[in-house]
Amino acid sequence: VSDSIVISIDAMGGDHGPAVAVPGVALALERLGGRKARFLLFGDEILLGVELAKYPAARAVCEVRATDKVITPDEKAAQALRRGKGSSLWNAVEAVRNGEANAAVSGGNTGALMAISKLLLRMTGGLDRPAIVASWPTMRGVTAVLDVGANIESDAAQLVEFAVMGEAFHCAVHGSVRPTVGILNVGSEEQKGHEEVREAHRILRDAGLNLDYRGFVEGDDIAKGAVDVVVTDGFSGNIALKTAEGLARFVGSVMRESFTSSLRNKIGALIAGPALRQIRERLDPSSVNGGPLLGLNGIVIKSHGGADARAFANAIRVAADLAFSDYAAQIDRNMKQLAAALPGHVQQEEPGARAGGETQ
Amino acid sequence: VSDSIVISIDAMGGDHGPAVAVPGVALALERLGGRKARFLLFGDEILLGVELAKYPAARAVCEVRATDKVITPDEKAAQALRRGKGSSLWNAVEAVRNGEANAAVSGGNTGALMAISKLLLRMTGGLDRPAIVASWPTMRGVTAVLDVGANIESDAAQLVEFAVMGEAFHCAVHGSVRPTVGILNVGSEEQKGHEEVREAHRILRDAGLNLDYRGFVEGDDIAKGAVDVVVTDGFSGNIALKTAEGLARFVGSVMRESFTSSLRNKIGALIAGPALRQIRERLDPSSVNGGPLLGLNGIVIKSHGGADARAFANAIRVAADLAFSDYAAQIDRNMKQLAAALPGHVQQEEPGARAGGETQ
Repeated sequence: VSDSIVISIDAMGGDHGPAVAVPGVALALERLGGRKARFLLFGDEILLGVELAKYPAARAVCEVRATDKVITPDEKAAQALRRGKGSSLWNAVEAVRNGEANAAVSGGNTGALMAISKLLLRMTGGLDRPAIVASWPTMRGVTAVLDVGANIESDAAQLVEFAVMGEAFHCAVHGSVRPTVGILNVGSEEQKGHEEVREAHRILRDAGLNLDYRGFVEGDDIAKGAVDVVVTDGFSGNIALKTAEGLARFVGSVMRESFTSSLRNKIGALIAGPALRQIRERLDPSSVNGGPLLGLNGIVIKSHGGADARAFANAIRVAADLAFSDYAAQIDRNMKQLAAALPGHVQQEEPGARAGGETQ
Repeated sequence: VSDSIVISIDAMGGDHGPAVAVPGVALALERLGGRKARFLLFGDEILLGVELAKYPAARAVCEVRATDKVITPDEKAAQALRRGKGSSLWNAVEAVRNGEANAAVSGGNTGALMAISKLLLRMTGGLDRPAIVASWPTMRGVTAVLDVGANIESDAAQLVEFAVMGEAFHCAVHGSVRPTVGILNVGSEEQKGHEEVREAHRILRDAGLNLDYRGFVEGDDIAKGAVDVVVTDGFSGNIALKTAEGLARFVGSVMRESFTSSLRNKIGALIAGPALRQIRERLDPSSVNGGPLLGLNGIVIKSHGGADARAFANAIRVAADLAFSDYAAQIDRNMKQLAAALPGHVQQEEPGARAGGETQ
């Protein structure tokens, strides 16, 4: 665990480029407390210079790395792999690969970010693609739900990996000491669901991992905050997440409609306006910006393309929390324990920089 | 299409038995308009007599069929199949099988209702178990989502059956003339998702069914009401539904919290109270009671166990809408069209009463 880290930023990735990335860095800097960080900003030298001139405190800890290539939002992953070398996204990830940075943050094309990260950093375990974790607001705090979109079909061993990675993520980013873990299913009885979830359940229950595993949970347990980490395949996880995001927006429209339906309601809404504005944000899983790509030999954080400076700063905070923590070592310990408990479970050990604060 | 129907009621099935079933019938009766219905009430003769005495209009169209056996909520399906004969649930379904009733309504044990319905009525197509459809409130009205819990793994042909059944359901119960249909997936591009959804997509696009098929939809399209019928396997469908139900309850708790956080908000909430109370109900997919078990040779409606008289009346209305419509014939036509377009797709033709208004 390091007391000083370097974060590489793909400053051209989001919809607003350096105009959001630089103020995002400035905001993140204020919130780091006593922790020390430096930043490598990859992107257009002139645009970055203009923005940095407005934020002297940020400029003092930023180094600009000029790039003139950008990966567009609609570029296919395969194309980004072929022609992406030298782009701001590629170089930000490569800085982690080379040991120059402890973590990378990008608001760019998700498919390209996953493909390039996988190519440059390699996967640590048995996943085909990096997993994406959502930090989902609940009645009790934040629950980490994974995978929410990358791995369409997941076998039992991959679901167990999600449990191990999600648990370490919740410790590092949401400050839990011992997060509880559940597998998403259509009922809580042992015989429910398909073979993959039942097998993952047996492994988590019996393999003696250092995890507080609580068994199956159902969809309504997410918002309840019944457990801190919810494990699911990328197909069901993506559908659950998007369904919830859609419902949160529906809440907004129903509230607007209800509160303009009569003079009495209009007056009530006028008085309670600030509360109404907060409600949608409290509900929406997409309001917490900064999802790590899990399962890589290195820390890569995906920010929403449309993030504003405040949201981008949150993605940087997630990167810093992971880089300052012993997250990578914690995953490593549990994966080794798993390999020992299940000799049949193959864990690929790849060469290359391991995540965490080892490069400084 | 009949102008007079008979509905059989499992009066002991819900948490409150005849005390909800009978007032439910009375309420439903008021809302049938010019349509004529009679009811067969299966359950405890004395309890039913006491309740019917309070509702003379209902008593005039109800016939009590005494049963003294009840299937409990925690009974396993296999046990219910062995010892359920002669129970209120069994006999209500049997009345449909015998041609005495056009539809059955039960608030009893879901697993038992599915197993007994499958045994007595048989499945019409290639499903292993009846599908459950949720009537999901959206920004534009109501979207039918199926399957939401019965069929854990669904192949392409089964997903296509859901589309055909869901479309006929939306016409009959929600009054659409030509409902739009989509398949739930993790993206709208053709290459997204697993093989089953991509194959179902190809069939619905190319098989020349008389369906307004719109391609893939994502989780957030449900609350938007992007299409009228959303097709999904029972695993993802159940997770989406329960996630949304959980979030709707979370809305309630966030609103309570927001509106008691300051004096100003308290006053606003006091004034806008009625609007606040409506909001949660408008959002919650479980607030629309009465889900048919689809894919059976006959109409069987599942009511929530905890339904009150108003909700039970809604389940009866769904039964009546289906029985009065040409729903069964519409499904039949599309399934025959499907069989002709896809010679490899086997459709089991079972003997026995076909659903709809044929028995009167």
